[in-house]
Amino acid sequence: MQIKVLLNESEMPRQWYNLAVDLPTPLAPPLGPDGKPITPDMLSAVFPMNLIEQEVSQERWIDIPEQILEILYRWRPSPLHRATFLEKALGTPARIYFKNESVSPAGSHKPNTAVAQAWYNKQAGIQRITTETGAGQWGSALAFACSLIGLECKVYMVRISFDQKPFRKMMMETWGATCIPSPSEQTEFGRSILRQFPNTPGSLGIAISEAVEDAVSDTSGKTRYSLGSVLNHVMLHQTIIGLEAKKQLEKIGERNVDVVIGCVGGGSNFAGLAFPFVCDKINGKDIDIIPVEPTSCPTLTRAPFGYDHGDTAGLTPLLAMHSLGHKFIPPPIHAGGLRYHGMAPLVSQALEDGLLNPRSYPQLDCYEAALTFARSEGIIVAPETSHAVAAAIQEARQATEEGKEKVILFNLSGHGLMDLYGYHKYLNNELSNHWLADEEIQRAAKDLKDFPKPHQTV
Amino acid sequence: MQIKVLLNESEMPRQWYNLAVDLPTPLAPPLGPDGKPITPDMLSAVFPMNLIEQEVSQERWIDIPEQILEILYRWRPSPLHRATFLEKALGTPARIYFKNESVSPAGSHKPNTAVAQAWYNKQAGIQRITTETGAGQWGSALAFACSLIGLECKVYMVRISFDQKPFRKMMMETWGATCIPSPSEQTEFGRSILRQFPNTPGSLGIAISEAVEDAVSDTSGKTRYSLGSVLNHVMLHQTIIGLEAKKQLEKIGERNVDVVIGCVGGGSNFAGLAFPFVCDKINGKDIDIIPVEPTSCPTLTRAPFGYDHGDTAGLTPLLAMHSLGHKFIPPPIHAGGLRYHGMAPLVSQALEDGLLNPRSYPQLDCYEAALTFARSEGIIVAPETSHAVAAAIQEARQATEEGKEKVILFNLSGHGLMDLYGYHKYLNNELSNHWLADEEIQRAAKDLKDFPKPHQTV
Repeated sequence: MQIKVLLNESEMPRQWYNLAVDLPTPLAPPLGPDGKPITPDMLSAVFPMNLIEQEVSQERWIDIPEQILEILYRWRPSPLHRATFLEKALGTPARIYFKNESVSPAGSHKPNTAVAQAWYNKQAGIQRITTETGAGQWGSALAFACSLIGLECKVYMVRISFDQKPFRKMMMETWGATCIPSPSEQTEFGRSILRQFPNTPGSLGIAISEAVEDAVSDTSGKTRYSLGSVLNHVMLHQTIIGLEAKKQLEKIGERNVDVVIGCVGGGSNFAGLAFPFVCDKINGKDIDIIPVEPTSCPTLTRAPFGYDHGDTAGLTPLLAMHSLGHKFIPPPIHAGGLRYHGMAPLVSQALEDGLLNPRSYPQLDCYEAALTFARSEGIIVAPETSHAVAAAIQEARQATEEGKEKVILFNLSGHGLMDLYGYHKYLNNELSNHWLADEEIQRAAKDLKDFPKPHQTV
Repeated sequence: MQIKVLLNESEMPRQWYNLAVDLPTPLAPPLGPDGKPITPDMLSAVFPMNLIEQEVSQERWIDIPEQILEILYRWRPSPLHRATFLEKALGTPARIYFKNESVSPAGSHKPNTAVAQAWYNKQAGIQRITTETGAGQWGSALAFACSLIGLECKVYMVRISFDQKPFRKMMMETWGATCIPSPSEQTEFGRSILRQFPNTPGSLGIAISEAVEDAVSDTSGKTRYSLGSVLNHVMLHQTIIGLEAKKQLEKIGERNVDVVIGCVGGGSNFAGLAFPFVCDKINGKDIDIIPVEPTSCPTLTRAPFGYDHGDTAGLTPLLAMHSLGHKFIPPPIHAGGLRYHGMAPLVSQALEDGLLNPRSYPQLDCYEAALTFARSEGIIVAPETSHAVAAAIQEARQATEEGKEKVILFNLSGHGLMDLYGYHKYLNNELSNHWLADEEIQRAAKDLKDFPKPHQTV
């Protein structure tokens, strides 16, 4: 029995897959402050034009430049594992596979797009990139990529995480990036927030606003902003995960995957694994595709679909997405990467088109699943990833009940070696579950009501 | 150009290599309290008999049991990388390869022997293993292995590290192990130390004594002790690293390696990579084999060769090795895994036989090298590993000066994601170098003088 499937360099996918072309309903475009679709030019102070072209591309397949492949190949293709020890622990007839994105030097899937974004910026003559980070996975990945490609990198890290997770900052600094707590004194917006709320813990929304302001206010024109999830080109870069997985499954004769699972915050690791399978589903294959989110931030399972801002301050264009409202602050669960009010427009539209079957779990169920996984398969997963593990285990248990030989595939988006405090608190019964009150959902629906409706605007 | 070489399951080595058989001078045996060679029986309260047999084996090749391979295969064969970005940064004509042991779920080479030791203990009917750990790499690896194989695991962690590195303990607990600070109230020896020195930071020597006492005092006979370095069977289990590396180099047509490098504390990661090449050297090949140690703990470069205890309390048998004296406490450098007074008898004897060319570096040189590596190749290495990186860079620079196409191979024994504080301090100029005073070496020579001389006792 094969428990690990590798691919060599020559088998590595050489194109990214663009789901936007195949979605039954075309994506509703981002809208500017005037309520009209924004043009690529309007984004050019924020992103380099080569990435804006990818953001709006109508090509199904986009070539991956050789120099990006050369870097990705240092840890990719990531292994596809068969979780035989977990199967045994569960006594399930299901075959459970996982794609192991934790093998990247930054420990997660994030470098897949960080490397691509840094490279395209460098090609466009950009010398410096700004970004925000919450728990720190994205900031670390971009610091790593900028180090290899030769770009300055400035990371605005949400203050509460900056204080609680000092190792993430050290990681970024080791790769030569600058990391400061947000809100900061270094931007207009940061200063205004600090004047009003000197003791604010900060938020992802504030940090985004600061990073964007930093980029667009550099008069030399040599600075751009970079985002680690949500946008179309980020989803695109991550599809290498699912494209590899398909080759790997084919290699061992697994022709039919029944269930594909990924955790979702902004959507990028889920999209990366799932979109090539969503394509198969659009073409008639019977696959259950499950994005998994925390019950404390149930964007896909409970939030309305509409236009909303990507950041708290409302500085970004309006995106057509499932959203809990751009002012929503999710409860402080340990899976910081899943604490985002919105959802990638591509993932949101795929749900609208009936292609996804989202699910939510409370925190304790996820840690319980992660512990079962760590003690059977030996890998300590990130708190975000634990949501995917919980769903995979539930699917496997159902297969046992039904006596079915189901094939389950999930994305192991990152390891949890920088997030052990959450495990510690779980083992000491110091964690609790969070469910969002119905009033929060009603409030979100009300907040989104004032914006245009997707697909009625163009 | 191939920058990463993989092996599939069928190419994985199926035997370990035992250097003891090929050393020009046979190993001097361990001695008991009476100064006479100890018999296998005398060790049976500490280790299971199947491991004792490996410890004294005179077989050149020892089969790796299938069930051990099945676990190792989850992350092995580890990739062999060509460090092209580092080569470019240095502008060297040398070809630099490294074996990436950081890909194991515990982040280092330690699980190679942890899995084997746990499995042999399980086979022997043992239900519980005790061990000590300093910085935590070994304790984590054994916790990981015991979790997968189904054994209880109890780790005595040096108190100062226990307090300074809480994440290591959380890692062990996540895998189901118990980790307590040493000295503890749970052993006779621990209590006696605490009575004398209530505020002691602890030491590896004390922790070894506690773990051994715990194992031998379990009257059920179901507990044994496990050591993560120094002993012959530990070196044996690690040789899979070098055996894989040879196959990988062969696969890409690199027939002659000029330099083989590994950092040394107790000797296990160095031995793992180097011993198969030491065998080639014994058979006449021209290879420079370089163990690298800190200037603060220069066991191979400056310490005498003689009989000494493996632990501070003097409870273990006398081992024939290079030693700074079993009461020596190395300065508190960040590479905790290299802070050991002695050296594996196999490594020590290989040096005596003129097969090794050891070298030492001060701490700041190592961090400088590690930073160069992190910012070119993208991997943040463990502080221990930084010593191997420093030597590889020095060799590459020499190749540049000589205009030689040298082939350099080093062992990337572990990642530094749990040790970022050292990088932080280096970047903030808070670290310093340590060289051992000549008096310390003279004291060590005097301490060893009272013990028998190796090769004059049997």
